[in-house]
Amino acid sequence: MPAASTRVPQQERSRATQARLLEATVECLVEHGWSGTTTTVVAARAGVSRGAQLHHYPTKAALVTAAVAHLTERRAAELRTEADALPAGPQRLDRVIDLLGAAFTGPLFVAALELWVAARTDAELRAALVPLEARVGREMHRLTVELLGVDERRPGVREAVQATLDLLRGLGVANLLSDDSPRRTALLHTWKRQLAVLLAPNPGSPDAVPPATGGPGRAGP
Amino acid sequence: MPAASTRVPQQERSRATQARLLEATVECLVEHGWSGTTTTVVAARAGVSRGAQLHHYPTKAALVTAAVAHLTERRAAELRTEADALPAGPQRLDRVIDLLGAAFTGPLFVAALELWVAARTDAELRAALVPLEARVGREMHRLTVELLGVDERRPGVREAVQATLDLLRGLGVANLLSDDSPRRTALLHTWKRQLAVLLAPNPGSPDAVPPATGGPGRAGP
Repeated sequence: MPAASTRVPQQERSRATQARLLEATVECLVEHGWSGTTTTVVAARAGVSRGAQLHHYPTKAALVTAAVAHLTERRAAELRTEADALPAGPQRLDRVIDLLGAAFTGPLFVAALELWVAARTDAELRAALVPLEARVGREMHRLTVELLGVDERRPGVREAVQATLDLLRGLGVANLLSDDSPRRTALLHTWKRQLAVLLAPNPGSPDAVPPATGGPGRAGP
Repeated sequence: MPAASTRVPQQERSRATQARLLEATVECLVEHGWSGTTTTVVAARAGVSRGAQLHHYPTKAALVTAAVAHLTERRAAELRTEADALPAGPQRLDRVIDLLGAAFTGPLFVAALELWVAARTDAELRAALVPLEARVGREMHRLTVELLGVDERRPGVREAVQATLDLLRGLGVANLLSDDSPRRTALLHTWKRQLAVLLAPNPGSPDAVPPATGGPGRAGP
Protein backbone atom coordinates (compact mmCIF):
# COMPACT_ATOMS: atom_id res chain seq x y z
CA MET A 1 0.00 0.00 0.00
CA PRO A 2 1.41 3.42 -0.86
CA ALA A 3 1.69 5.83 2.05
CA ALA A 4 -0.59 8.35 0.28
CA SER A 5 -3.68 6.15 0.68
CA THR A 6 -3.41 6.17 4.48
CA ARG A 7 -2.39 9.81 4.77
CA VAL A 8 -5.29 11.93 5.97
CA PRO A 9 -5.35 15.45 4.55
CA GLN A 10 -4.55 18.22 7.04
CA GLN A 11 -7.98 19.82 6.83
CA GLU A 12 -9.76 16.55 7.56
CA ARG A 13 -7.49 15.86 10.53
CA SER A 14 -8.24 19.34 11.90
CA ARG A 15 -11.94 18.67 11.63
CA ALA A 16 -11.59 15.34 13.41
CA THR A 17 -9.53 16.98 16.17
CA GLN A 18 -12.16 19.69 16.56
CA ALA A 19 -14.99 17.16 16.71
CA ARG A 20 -13.15 15.15 19.40
CA LEU A 21 -12.56 18.31 21.45
CA LEU A 22 -16.18 19.43 21.14
CA GLU A 23 -17.59 16.06 22.11
CA ALA A 24 -15.19 15.79 25.05
CA THR A 25 -16.33 19.26 26.15
CA VAL A 26 -19.98 18.28 26.31
CA GLU A 27 -19.12 15.02 28.12
CA CYS A 28 -17.06 17.00 30.58
CA LEU A 29 -19.85 19.54 31.19
CA VAL A 30 -22.31 16.71 31.81
CA GLU A 31 -19.96 14.87 34.15
CA HIS A 32 -18.26 17.70 36.05
CA GLY A 33 -20.41 20.80 35.42
CA TRP A 34 -19.17 24.21 34.33
CA SER A 35 -16.70 24.76 37.16
CA GLY A 36 -15.21 21.26 36.79
CA THR A 37 -14.71 21.73 33.06
CA THR A 38 -11.25 23.05 32.22
CA THR A 39 -9.58 23.24 28.82
CA THR A 40 -6.80 20.99 30.17
CA VAL A 41 -9.24 18.27 31.27
CA VAL A 42 -11.05 18.47 27.92
CA ALA A 43 -7.80 18.21 25.90
CA ALA A 44 -6.74 15.15 27.93
CA ARG A 45 -10.16 13.53 27.54
CA ALA A 46 -10.12 14.14 23.77
CA GLY A 47 -6.55 12.82 23.46
CA VAL A 48 -5.51 16.14 21.89
CA SER A 49 -2.36 18.09 22.78
CA ARG A 50 -2.69 21.33 24.73
CA GLY A 51 -1.12 23.15 21.78
CA ALA A 52 -3.62 21.78 19.27
CA GLN A 53 -6.49 22.55 21.63
CA LEU A 54 -5.35 26.16 22.13
CA HIS A 55 -4.84 26.49 18.38
CA HIS A 56 -8.45 25.55 17.65
CA TYR A 57 -10.13 27.08 20.71
CA PRO A 58 -7.99 29.67 22.50
CA THR A 59 -10.38 30.20 25.45
CA LYS A 60 -12.77 28.13 27.56
CA ALA A 61 -15.66 30.35 26.39
CA ALA A 62 -14.74 29.70 22.72
CA LEU A 63 -14.49 25.97 23.36
CA VAL A 64 -17.79 25.50 25.20
CA THR A 65 -19.73 27.77 22.85
CA ALA A 66 -18.40 25.89 19.80
CA ALA A 67 -19.23 22.61 21.54
CA VAL A 68 -22.87 23.49 22.13
CA ALA A 69 -23.23 24.91 18.59
CA HIS A 70 -21.65 21.80 17.02
CA LEU A 71 -23.59 19.29 19.10
CA THR A 72 -26.86 21.15 18.54
CA GLU A 73 -26.37 20.87 14.79
CA ARG A 74 -25.45 17.20 15.06
CA ARG A 75 -28.42 16.48 17.33
CA ALA A 76 -30.76 18.35 14.95
CA ALA A 77 -29.51 16.21 12.07
CA GLU A 78 -30.04 13.05 14.16
CA LEU A 79 -33.57 14.18 15.06
CA ARG A 80 -34.33 14.73 11.36
CA THR A 81 -33.10 11.22 10.55
CA GLU A 82 -35.09 9.70 13.42
CA ALA A 83 -38.18 11.65 12.36
CA ASP A 84 -37.78 10.51 8.75
CA ALA A 85 -38.29 6.96 9.97
CA LEU A 86 -41.58 7.86 11.68
CA PRO A 87 -44.89 6.89 10.08
CA ALA A 88 -47.18 9.62 8.80
CA GLY A 89 -50.62 9.96 10.38
CA PRO A 90 -51.94 10.80 13.84
CA GLN A 91 -49.21 8.85 15.69
CA ARG A 92 -46.51 11.06 14.21
CA LEU A 93 -47.14 14.01 16.54
CA ASP A 94 -46.86 11.72 19.59
CA ARG A 95 -43.58 10.25 18.41
CA VAL A 96 -42.11 13.66 17.55
CA ILE A 97 -42.94 14.93 21.05
CA ASP A 98 -41.30 11.80 22.50
CA LEU A 99 -38.14 12.51 20.46
CA LEU A 100 -38.09 16.12 21.65
CA GLY A 101 -38.81 15.09 25.23
CA ALA A 102 -35.74 12.83 25.07
CA ALA A 103 -33.63 15.64 23.58
CA PHE A 104 -34.64 18.05 26.38
CA THR A 105 -33.58 15.58 29.06
CA GLY A 106 -30.43 14.37 27.29
CA PRO A 107 -26.74 15.24 27.73
CA LEU A 108 -26.78 18.16 25.30
CA PHE A 109 -29.59 19.89 27.21
CA VAL A 110 -27.75 19.37 30.48
CA ALA A 111 -24.49 20.72 29.02
CA ALA A 112 -26.28 23.74 27.54
CA LEU A 113 -28.02 24.45 30.86
CA GLU A 114 -24.65 24.39 32.63
CA LEU A 115 -23.45 27.09 30.21
CA TRP A 116 -26.62 29.17 30.37
CA VAL A 117 -26.53 29.30 34.17
CA ALA A 118 -22.77 29.97 34.30
CA ALA A 119 -23.11 32.72 31.69
CA ARG A 120 -25.48 34.61 33.96
CA THR A 121 -22.53 35.60 36.16
CA ASP A 122 -19.66 35.34 33.59
CA ALA A 123 -19.54 38.30 31.21
CA GLU A 124 -17.20 36.66 28.65
CA LEU A 125 -19.29 33.51 28.38
CA ARG A 126 -22.47 35.53 28.26
CA ALA A 127 -21.22 37.62 25.33
CA ALA A 128 -20.43 34.40 23.46
CA LEU A 129 -23.71 32.68 24.32
CA VAL A 130 -26.32 35.37 23.68
CA PRO A 131 -26.00 35.19 19.86
CA LEU A 132 -25.88 31.38 20.06
CA GLU A 133 -29.03 31.34 22.21
CA ALA A 134 -30.94 33.29 19.56
CA ARG A 135 -29.66 30.98 16.80
CA VAL A 136 -30.35 27.75 18.69
CA GLY A 137 -33.81 29.05 19.61
CA ARG A 138 -34.67 29.78 15.97
CA GLU A 139 -33.26 26.44 14.81
CA MET A 140 -35.12 24.42 17.43
CA HIS A 141 -38.32 26.21 16.51
CA ARG A 142 -37.82 25.59 12.78
CA LEU A 143 -36.88 21.97 13.40
CA THR A 144 -39.99 21.37 15.52
CA VAL A 145 -42.25 22.91 12.87
CA GLU A 146 -40.56 20.68 10.27
CA LEU A 147 -40.75 17.48 12.34
CA LEU A 148 -44.40 18.08 13.15
CA GLY A 149 -45.08 18.83 9.50
CA VAL A 150 -47.25 21.84 10.33
CA ASP A 151 -47.84 25.13 8.54
CA GLU A 152 -46.71 28.04 10.67
CA ARG A 153 -48.74 30.57 8.71
CA ARG A 154 -51.91 29.14 10.23
CA PRO A 155 -53.12 31.03 13.32
CA GLY A 156 -52.00 29.53 16.59
CA VAL A 157 -49.40 27.13 15.17
CA ARG A 158 -46.36 29.28 15.96
CA GLU A 159 -47.57 29.85 19.53
CA ALA A 160 -48.35 26.16 20.06
CA VAL A 161 -44.83 25.21 18.90
CA GLN A 162 -43.29 27.85 21.18
CA ALA A 163 -45.31 26.70 24.19
CA THR A 164 -44.25 23.10 23.47
CA LEU A 165 -40.56 24.05 23.51
CA ASP A 166 -40.92 26.14 26.68
CA LEU A 167 -42.81 23.30 28.34
CA LEU A 168 -40.11 20.81 27.30
CA ARG A 169 -37.41 23.13 28.69
CA GLY A 170 -39.27 23.28 32.00
CA LEU A 171 -39.57 19.49 32.03
CA GLY A 172 -35.84 19.21 31.30
CA VAL A 173 -35.05 21.27 34.41
CA ALA A 174 -37.47 19.19 36.51
CA ASN A 175 -35.45 16.11 35.51
CA LEU A 176 -32.05 17.43 36.62
CA LEU A 177 -31.79 15.89 40.09
CA SER A 178 -34.06 12.89 39.92
CA ASP A 179 -35.81 10.81 37.32
CA ASP A 180 -39.00 12.69 36.49
CA SER A 181 -39.96 10.43 33.57
CA PRO A 182 -43.24 8.96 34.95
CA ARG A 183 -44.63 12.44 35.61
CA ARG A 184 -43.22 13.76 32.32
CA THR A 185 -44.73 10.90 30.31
CA ALA A 186 -48.17 11.50 31.84
CA LEU A 187 -47.95 15.25 31.34
CA LEU A 188 -46.78 14.94 27.73
CA HIS A 189 -49.56 12.42 27.08
CA THR A 190 -52.05 15.15 27.95
CA TRP A 191 -50.05 17.80 26.08
CA LYS A 192 -50.02 15.72 22.89
CA ARG A 193 -53.83 15.66 22.90
CA GLN A 194 -54.01 19.44 23.39
CA LEU A 195 -51.35 20.05 20.79
CA ALA A 196 -53.15 17.90 18.23
CA VAL A 197 -56.17 20.16 18.68
CA LEU A 198 -54.12 23.38 18.57
CA LEU A 199 -52.35 22.26 15.38
CA ALA A 200 -55.47 20.91 13.66
CA PRO A 201 -56.78 22.95 10.71
CA ASN A 202 -60.03 23.67 12.59
CA PRO A 203 -59.19 24.17 16.25
CA GLY A 204 -62.70 25.04 17.44
CA SER A 205 -64.09 21.50 17.32
CA PRO A 206 -66.29 20.27 20.21
CA ASP A 207 -63.73 17.75 21.46
CA ALA A 208 -61.11 20.49 21.54
CA VAL A 209 -59.84 19.85 25.07
CA PRO A 210 -60.53 16.34 26.29
CA PRO A 211 -60.25 15.63 30.02
CA ALA A 212 -56.71 14.70 30.99
CA THR A 213 -55.39 11.89 33.19
CA GLY A 214 -52.60 10.92 35.57
CA GLY A 215 -49.34 12.32 36.93
CA PRO A 216 -48.21 13.11 40.50
CA GLY A 217 -47.40 16.67 41.57
CA ARG A 218 -43.71 17.56 41.31
CA ALA A 219 -41.52 20.41 40.16
CA GLY A 220 -37.94 21.69 39.99
CA PRO A 221 -36.95 25.25 40.87
CA MET B 1 -36.66 53.52 80.03
CA PRO B 2 -35.65 50.27 81.72
CA ALA B 3 -33.10 48.16 79.84
CA ALA B 4 -35.50 45.20 79.68
CA SER B 5 -37.82 46.94 77.17
CA THR B 6 -35.03 47.31 74.59
CA ARG B 7 -33.45 43.93 75.22
CA VAL B 8 -34.34 41.50 72.46
CA PRO B 9 -34.79 37.92 73.63
CA GLN B 10 -32.11 35.46 72.50
CA GLN B 11 -34.47 33.37 70.39
CA GLU B 12 -35.73 36.38 68.48
CA ARG B 13 -32.19 37.58 67.84
CA SER B 14 -31.27 34.13 66.53
CA ARG B 15 -34.20 34.22 64.16
CA ALA B 16 -33.22 37.65 62.89
CA THR B 17 -29.62 36.51 62.38
CA GLN B 18 -30.83 33.47 60.47
CA ALA B 19 -33.13 35.54 58.28
CA ARG B 20 -30.30 37.96 57.46
CA LEU B 21 -27.99 35.06 56.56
CA LEU B 22 -30.61 33.39 54.38
CA GLU B 23 -31.47 36.57 52.52
CA ALA B 24 -27.80 37.37 51.99
CA THR B 25 -27.34 33.84 50.62
CA VAL B 26 -29.99 34.27 47.95
CA GLU B 27 -28.63 37.72 47.02
CA CYS B 28 -25.16 36.23 46.77
CA LEU B 29 -26.36 33.35 44.55
CA VAL B 30 -28.13 35.80 42.26
CA GLU B 31 -25.12 38.11 42.05
CA HIS B 32 -22.19 35.68 42.00
CA GLY B 33 -23.69 32.28 41.17
CA TRP B 34 -23.04 29.02 43.01
CA SER B 35 -19.26 29.01 42.67
CA GLY B 36 -18.96 32.66 43.74
CA THR B 37 -21.08 32.05 46.84
CA THR B 38 -18.99 31.22 49.88
CA THR B 39 -20.09 31.08 53.51
CA THR B 40 -17.50 33.80 54.30
CA VAL B 41 -18.91 36.18 51.67
CA VAL B 42 -22.44 35.51 52.90
CA ALA B 43 -21.55 36.13 56.56
CA ALA B 44 -19.86 39.43 55.63
CA ARG B 45 -22.81 40.49 53.50
CA ALA B 46 -25.27 39.67 56.29
CA GLY B 47 -23.14 41.49 58.88
CA VAL B 48 -22.96 38.29 60.93
CA SER B 49 -19.82 36.88 62.55
CA ARG B 50 -18.25 33.74 61.09
CA GLY B 51 -18.87 32.01 64.41
CA ALA B 52 -22.57 32.83 64.45
CA GLN B 53 -22.89 31.80 60.81
CA LEU B 54 -21.20 28.43 61.45
CA HIS B 55 -23.35 27.95 64.55
CA HIS B 56 -26.58 28.28 62.55
CA TYR B 57 -25.44 26.70 59.27
CA PRO B 58 -22.32 24.58 59.57
CA THR B 59 -21.93 23.88 55.83
CA LYS B 60 -22.51 25.68 52.55
CA ALA B 61 -25.04 23.00 51.56
CA ALA B 62 -26.98 23.56 54.81
CA LEU B 63 -26.92 27.33 54.31
CA VAL B 64 -28.09 27.41 50.69
CA THR B 65 -30.75 24.74 51.21
CA ALA B 66 -32.16 26.60 54.22
CA ALA B 67 -32.06 29.83 52.19
CA VAL B 68 -34.13 28.44 49.34
CA ALA B 69 -36.57 26.78 51.76
CA HIS B 70 -36.98 29.99 53.80
CA LEU B 71 -37.31 32.31 50.80
CA THR B 72 -39.76 29.95 49.09
CA GLU B 73 -42.01 30.10 52.16
CA ARG B 74 -41.72 33.87 52.36
CA ARG B 75 -42.42 34.27 48.64
CA ALA B 76 -45.43 31.93 48.89
CA ALA B 77 -46.82 34.06 51.73
CA GLU B 78 -46.25 37.22 49.65
CA LEU B 79 -48.00 35.63 46.65
CA ARG B 80 -50.98 34.75 48.86
CA THR B 81 -51.17 38.36 50.08
CA GLU B 82 -50.87 39.73 46.55
CA ALA B 83 -53.51 37.28 45.33
CA ASP B 84 -55.86 38.25 48.18
CA ALA B 85 -55.93 41.76 46.72
CA LEU B 86 -56.98 40.47 43.28
CA PRO B 87 -60.57 40.84 42.13
CA ALA B 88 -62.69 37.73 41.65
CA GLY B 89 -64.01 36.99 38.19
CA PRO B 90 -62.47 36.15 34.81
CA GLN B 91 -59.55 38.59 35.21
CA ARG B 92 -58.31 36.72 38.26
CA LEU B 93 -56.72 33.88 36.32
CA ASP B 94 -54.78 36.34 34.16
CA ARG B 95 -53.45 38.22 37.16
CA VAL B 96 -52.48 35.02 38.99
CA ILE B 97 -50.49 33.86 35.95
CA ASP B 98 -48.80 37.27 35.83
CA LEU B 99 -47.82 36.92 39.50
CA LEU B 100 -46.45 33.43 38.89
CA GLY B 101 -44.65 34.56 35.73
CA ALA B 102 -42.92 37.24 37.80
CA ALA B 103 -42.00 34.68 40.48
CA PHE B 104 -40.46 32.32 37.90
CA THR B 105 -38.24 35.07 36.52
CA GLY B 106 -37.37 36.65 39.88
CA PRO B 107 -34.29 36.36 42.14
CA LEU B 108 -35.55 33.31 44.04
CA PHE B 109 -36.01 31.31 40.84
CA VAL B 110 -32.54 32.28 39.68
CA ALA B 111 -31.00 31.35 43.05
CA ALA B 112 -32.84 28.02 43.08
CA LEU B 113 -31.72 27.24 39.52
CA GLU B 114 -28.10 27.91 40.53
CA LEU B 115 -28.49 25.28 43.26
CA TRP B 116 -30.34 22.76 41.11
CA VAL B 117 -27.66 22.88 38.42
CA ALA B 118 -24.79 22.80 40.93
CA ALA B 119 -26.40 19.86 42.76
CA ARG B 120 -26.26 17.78 39.60
CA THR B 121 -22.50 17.39 40.08
CA ASP B 122 -22.24 17.92 43.88
CA ALA B 123 -23.32 14.88 45.88
CA GLU B 124 -23.65 16.68 49.25
CA LEU B 125 -25.80 19.47 47.82
CA ARG B 126 -27.86 16.99 45.86
CA ALA B 127 -28.65 14.94 48.98
CA ALA B 128 -29.85 18.13 50.69
CA LEU B 129 -31.86 19.39 47.71
CA VAL B 130 -33.76 16.29 46.56
CA PRO B 131 -36.17 16.31 49.56
CA LEU B 132 -36.51 20.09 49.26
CA GLU B 133 -37.31 19.79 45.54
CA ALA B 134 -40.19 17.41 46.30
CA ARG B 135 -41.50 19.73 49.04
CA VAL B 136 -41.18 22.94 47.00
CA GLY B 137 -42.84 21.19 44.04
CA ARG B 138 -45.83 20.11 46.15
CA GLU B 139 -46.12 23.56 47.76
CA MET B 140 -45.95 25.43 44.45
CA HIS B 141 -48.63 23.13 43.05
CA ARG B 142 -50.90 23.59 46.08
CA LEU B 143 -50.33 27.35 46.07
CA THR B 144 -51.21 27.61 42.37
CA VAL B 145 -54.41 25.60 42.84
CA GLU B 146 -55.30 27.88 45.76
CA LEU B 147 -54.49 31.15 43.95
CA LEU B 148 -56.47 30.06 40.89
CA GLY B 149 -59.33 29.00 43.14
CA VAL B 150 -59.87 25.75 41.22
CA ASP B 151 -61.03 22.32 42.32
CA GLU B 152 -58.33 19.73 41.72
CA ARG B 153 -60.75 16.83 41.92
CA ARG B 154 -62.20 17.86 38.55
CA PRO B 155 -60.66 15.99 35.60
CA GLY B 156 -57.84 17.83 33.89
CA VAL B 157 -57.31 20.49 36.56
CA ARG B 158 -54.28 18.86 38.17
CA GLU B 159 -52.63 18.33 34.77
CA ALA B 160 -53.37 21.90 33.64
CA VAL B 161 -51.79 23.29 36.82
CA GLN B 162 -48.75 21.05 36.36
CA ALA B 163 -48.30 22.07 32.72
CA THR B 164 -48.58 25.73 33.76
CA LEU B 165 -45.77 25.35 36.30
CA ASP B 166 -43.55 23.42 33.87
CA LEU B 167 -44.18 26.04 31.20
CA LEU B 168 -43.33 28.84 33.65
CA ARG B 169 -40.12 27.04 34.63
CA GLY B 170 -39.15 26.81 30.96
CA LEU B 171 -39.91 30.50 30.50
CA GLY B 172 -37.80 31.29 33.56
CA VAL B 173 -34.78 29.56 31.96
CA ALA B 174 -35.40 31.37 28.65
CA ASN B 175 -35.10 34.65 30.58
CA LEU B 176 -31.70 33.93 32.16
CA LEU B 177 -29.38 35.69 29.73
CA SER B 178 -31.57 38.31 28.11
CA ASP B 179 -34.92 39.96 28.69
CA ASP B 180 -37.49 37.57 27.23
CA SER B 181 -40.50 39.49 28.57
CA PRO B 182 -42.11 40.53 25.24
CA ARG B 183 -42.14 36.93 24.03
CA ARG B 184 -43.17 35.63 27.46
CA THR B 185 -46.06 38.10 27.74
CA ALA B 186 -47.40 37.10 24.31
CA LEU B 187 -47.03 33.40 25.05
CA LEU B 188 -48.69 33.67 28.45
CA HIS B 189 -51.50 35.70 26.90
CA THR B 190 -52.27 32.68 24.73
CA TRP B 191 -51.73 30.25 27.59
CA LYS B 192 -54.19 32.12 29.83
CA ARG B 193 -56.92 31.61 27.20
CA GLN B 194 -56.16 27.90 26.94
CA LEU B 195 -55.94 27.53 30.70
CA ALA B 196 -59.30 29.24 31.20
CA VAL B 197 -60.81 26.58 28.95
CA LEU B 198 -58.95 23.70 30.63
CA LEU B 199 -60.02 24.89 34.09
CA ALA B 200 -63.62 25.64 33.13
CA PRO B 201 -66.28 23.28 34.53
CA ASN B 202 -67.26 22.18 30.99
CA PRO B 203 -64.07 22.03 28.93
CA GLY B 204 -65.65 20.69 25.73
CA SER B 205 -67.25 23.97 24.63
CA PRO B 206 -67.01 25.02 20.95
CA ASP B 207 -64.68 27.94 21.65
CA ALA B 208 -62.40 25.61 23.58
CA VAL B 209 -59.15 26.61 21.86
CA PRO B 210 -59.33 30.06 20.31
CA PRO B 211 -56.71 31.00 17.71
CA ALA B 212 -53.63 32.51 19.35
CA THR B 213 -51.65 35.65 18.55
CA GLY B 214 -48.17 37.18 18.67
CA GLY B 215 -44.66 36.39 19.91
CA PRO B 216 -41.32 36.03 18.06
CA GLY B 217 -39.46 32.69 18.03
CA ARG B 218 -36.90 32.38 20.80
CA ALA B 219 -35.64 29.83 23.30
CA GLY B 220 -33.02 29.07 25.95
CA PRO B 221 -31.19 25.74 26.21
